[in-house]
Amino acid sequence: MFREKIKVFDCTIRDGGLCNNHDFDDRFVRAVYKALSEAGVDYMEIGYKNSKKLFSPKDFGKWKFCDDADIEKIIEGIESKTKISVMVDVDRVDIEDVKPKKESPVDMIRVASYVKDIDKAIFLVNHFADKGYETTVNIMAISRALDNELTEALDQRENECKAKVIYIVDSFGELYQETAEFLVKKFKSILKTKEIGMHAHNNQQLAFGNTIEAIIHNVNFLDGTVYGLGRAAGNCPLELLIGFLKNPKFDIRPILDLISNEFVPLREKLEWGYIIPYAITGILDEHPKSAIALRNSIKKENYREFYESLLGDDLD
Amino acid sequence: MFREKIKVFDCTIRDGGLCNNHDFDDRFVRAVYKALSEAGVDYMEIGYKNSKKLFSPKDFGKWKFCDDADIEKIIEGIESKTKISVMVDVDRVDIEDVKPKKESPVDMIRVASYVKDIDKAIFLVNHFADKGYETTVNIMAISRALDNELTEALDQRENECKAKVIYIVDSFGELYQETAEFLVKKFKSILKTKEIGMHAHNNQQLAFGNTIEAIIHNVNFLDGTVYGLGRAAGNCPLELLIGFLKNPKFDIRPILDLISNEFVPLREKLEWGYIIPYAITGILDEHPKSAIALRNSIKKENYREFYESLLGDDLD
Repeated sequence: MFREKIKVFDCTIRDGGLCNNHDFDDRFVRAVYKALSEAGVDYMEIGYKNSKKLFSPKDFGKWKFCDDADIEKIIEGIESKTKISVMVDVDRVDIEDVKPKKESPVDMIRVASYVKDIDKAIFLVNHFADKGYETTVNIMAISRALDNELTEALDQRENECKAKVIYIVDSFGELYQETAEFLVKKFKSILKTKEIGMHAHNNQQLAFGNTIEAIIHNVNFLDGTVYGLGRAAGNCPLELLIGFLKNPKFDIRPILDLISNEFVPLREKLEWGYIIPYAITGILDEHPKSAIALRNSIKKENYREFYESLLGDDLD
Repeated sequence: MFREKIKVFDCTIRDGGLCNNHDFDDRFVRAVYKALSEAGVDYMEIGYKNSKKLFSPKDFGKWKFCDDADIEKIIEGIESKTKISVMVDVDRVDIEDVKPKKESPVDMIRVASYVKDIDKAIFLVNHFADKGYETTVNIMAISRALDNELTEALDQRENECKAKVIYIVDSFGELYQETAEFLVKKFKSILKTKEIGMHAHNNQQLAFGNTIEAIIHNVNFLDGTVYGLGRAAGNCPLELLIGFLKNPKFDIRPILDLISNEFVPLREKLEWGYIIPYAITGILDEHPKSAIALRNSIKKENYREFYESLLGDDLD
């Protein structure tokens, strides 16, 4: 599947940071950056840009804040064409923290937003675009978006928003390939001047399959993480994505070394991947937080009770 | 995805037996049978029917031979509508070991065969069909079948073979959904009087995705294994398949209990699932045996060297 426009976007440290309060040490992050650079990966997302007025640096690792100086220490001395991205959440970023692009090692800023927060997301994107950054909007929890609201939000993005890419984010790992195809076609029918991105979660072992489905339907921005590291069930494994793409600019071998040397040991200390409670929240289209709480309790392997607890709400 | 004709086919003990020389104890196998029965799974494949002249019962567990008396001990006293299947390999079965269906607890016999062994497979299938069994042919290593040979083999199956179902078997875990779709359409274009089956391996985390793709294109026999247990990367996880199918006859809860009680502890002792060397053989369309050997060596985490060793053959 060679298509020159395809961009492989790694978010190992950013999404993986949700597993450990963004507390990766510099040696580890440099190893990731070096391997991604050697592998020819187009972008590396290194963390969130959160306001220190809202979150204390005492409680989190540095990749929850992504100070430019901290990023400089990671990339220093490593030959690379890999661009650096940071993510911001609506209502959590202090825009004064973001310097003009010319003064920053950051190339891209991705704004994560629910459909309902479209106006806030567009404000942020346009602000960062005006400062010189590449920008995206990542529409979270897409499996719960009502079609009419999504249509309106996409119309606004097409007409009012300077983002280069609009992402489909399957936050709950609920999509399968028919729904992924439906969403891609919907996005493409409205977003005539934007690229589309796919950020998939692996609750049902469909993150890679849904990403392939997106590729088939001409999505060009593809998120993955090394060894699938990421919150809960994790993400589309970057090594599989690179193994699938036949673009000669990519080399899987530095990623294989990185997994051998860093991620196999890490997996002994940190839990992510295909675990039944995450599969259950994916099947039921639920946020993984209840499953994460379960995994931190003594009932961590009590799957039936957990499943039934999610069925139990009388709503009417 | 409710379609009445869909049959869910569990091969946990059969394919899982390839991980432990078919040496599951009766208590475990009964627990699997009971859970599958309660979950409404249509078939359970319990092992292989191999000739004791070729393999010694001293060297293998009983599910490499599947004596009727051993099967009787498993199913005795458990209320069930789940049918029992055994698999035979071309050239490894002694057909005299197979009694007429009326005298046996076995309902179905599946014949595993490469494309080249089509005539032997048809002979076996017709022999077992004449003895009263439901039968299938499972075409292994489909990702390496040459199109013209596959066409001829399918023509023969349609015209000369009494099998009820012809299976696509992605032995190497190489397919992705476009190739799965291509093969399903090819099978359906020739096999007008047969059902099609899908047996997927999970080297690239695509077993469930490819099985969904098969469902979308009207494949009705769907293989899975509990928690994905199976040789090397394992199989399509049965719990995901049941979670996806909206047929009210299935109940995921007994499978969740089974995983909690039996498969989480088993995974501590037995290795299967998404492991990089199996991903590599899947990406490169290779038999997993080299990766299995690697996992039993001191180089088990040396992924780059393994990858390069598979690239290294000069063929010309």
